[in-house]
Amino acid sequence: MGERMVTGHVFIAVSLDGYIARADGDIAWLLARDDPSEDHGYNEFIADKDVIVMGRGSYEQVAKFEAWPYNRPVLVLSQQLAGTPVPESLAGKVRFSALSPVEAMKELERQGARRAYIDGGQLVQSFLREGLIADMVITTVPVLIGAGRPLFGALPEDRDLTLLSSRSFPSGLVQSSYRLQ
Amino acid sequence: MGERMVTGHVFIAVSLDGYIARADGDIAWLLARDDPSEDHGYNEFIADKDVIVMGRGSYEQVAKFEAWPYNRPVLVLSQQLAGTPVPESLAGKVRFSALSPVEAMKELERQGARRAYIDGGQLVQSFLREGLIADMVITTVPVLIGAGRPLFGALPEDRDLTLLSSRSFPSGLVQSSYRLQ
Repeated sequence: MGERMVTGHVFIAVSLDGYIARADGDIAWLLARDDPSEDHGYNEFIADKDVIVMGRGSYEQVAKFEAWPYNRPVLVLSQQLAGTPVPESLAGKVRFSALSPVEAMKELERQGARRAYIDGGQLVQSFLREGLIADMVITTVPVLIGAGRPLFGALPEDRDLTLLSSRSFPSGLVQSSYRLQ
Repeated sequence: MGERMVTGHVFIAVSLDGYIARADGDIAWLLARDDPSEDHGYNEFIADKDVIVMGRGSYEQVAKFEAWPYNRPVLVLSQQLAGTPVPESLAGKVRFSALSPVEAMKELERQGARRAYIDGGQLVQSFLREGLIADMVITTVPVLIGAGRPLFGALPEDRDLTLLSSRSFPSGLVQSSYRLQ
C-alpha cells in the first residue's frame, strides 16, 4: 500500500467460537451480552474514521434499527444493491456500489478519505485477503453459539499480526487490538 | 454433573481465526510463535490434573516428538486405536480406549481421578457438547492461518461462559480463562 492509500480498520465483536452473527444474521445473542455501562471504545475508534464500508448483510441488519446509527458516510459494497435506489430516509448518508474492495478504496482515496471503518464478516474477509486492513479491534464475547457467520475465512497465505493491546471488561468481554504486518 | 464427577479442563492454543492445527495436523506455525522465555502457565495448569485425555489426532502429533512430554497418565479415546497395542516405549504411560466421553469420565472417576486435562480439537468439541468441561484456558496466537482444524464446533445450544481472567504476553499471545456455566 502506498503512503496515501486509504487504510482499512476493523472494530467488531465475535463469539468465542468466531461468529459475528447466527446463520440468519441474528445478533440478539450479542446485544443481550452488551453492558451499556461499559465503554468498549467505539466512539474513540470511530473518531478518526472518514467513512464506513460495509456489505449487504451488515447494511440490512443496521437498516432494521429504529434510528440510523452512523454519523459517517456509509458505502455499501453489494452487486445486488448497486442497481437499486437508496431508501429516501438514507439519502446522503448511504451509497450503494458494485466496486471491488481495491477499487472502492481507490475511489474513497480520490474523495479525500484516509481511514475507513470496514464492517461485516464477508467484507472483512475480502479486505483481509486483499491486504487492505491496517488494524483490527476484536472484542470476544464469552459465549459459544456453535454456528453462524464467521468473522474470518480462507486466506491465500498466513497473516501475521502484532498485538497492540488487550483488555478485559467486568462483563467478560476481552478486547484485543492487532496491527496487520 | 454430581459433585464427585471428574471435571474436564482445557488448556489450548489457537490461531486468531480459531484453528489448533492445519488440516494435516501441522502445528509448526504455533511452535514458531512460542517464546520459551515466557511462562504461559502450563506447569501451573497441569499441577492439579490427574490424567490427560486426548484424541487420536493429538496423540499422533505428540507421539512424533523425540521425548514423551507428559508426566501424567494419558488416556487416548479412539475407536481406531482401541484395538491396537500401545507402543512399547509408552507402556504404562498411555492407554487406548473406545469409551465415549461420558463413559471415559465415569471410568476415570472409579479409578480415583478428579480433574482431567482434555486435549485436542475433536475431543474438546465432544466434551463440550456433553457438558463435561468445567473450564478452559485459551491462548490466542496472533496469526491468521485461514484454514485447519477448528477448536470449536457445533453445539446443541449456546454455552455461556464466565471470564475468570485474561492477560497478554510481549510475544502477542492473549490468554483468557473461562468457566463454563
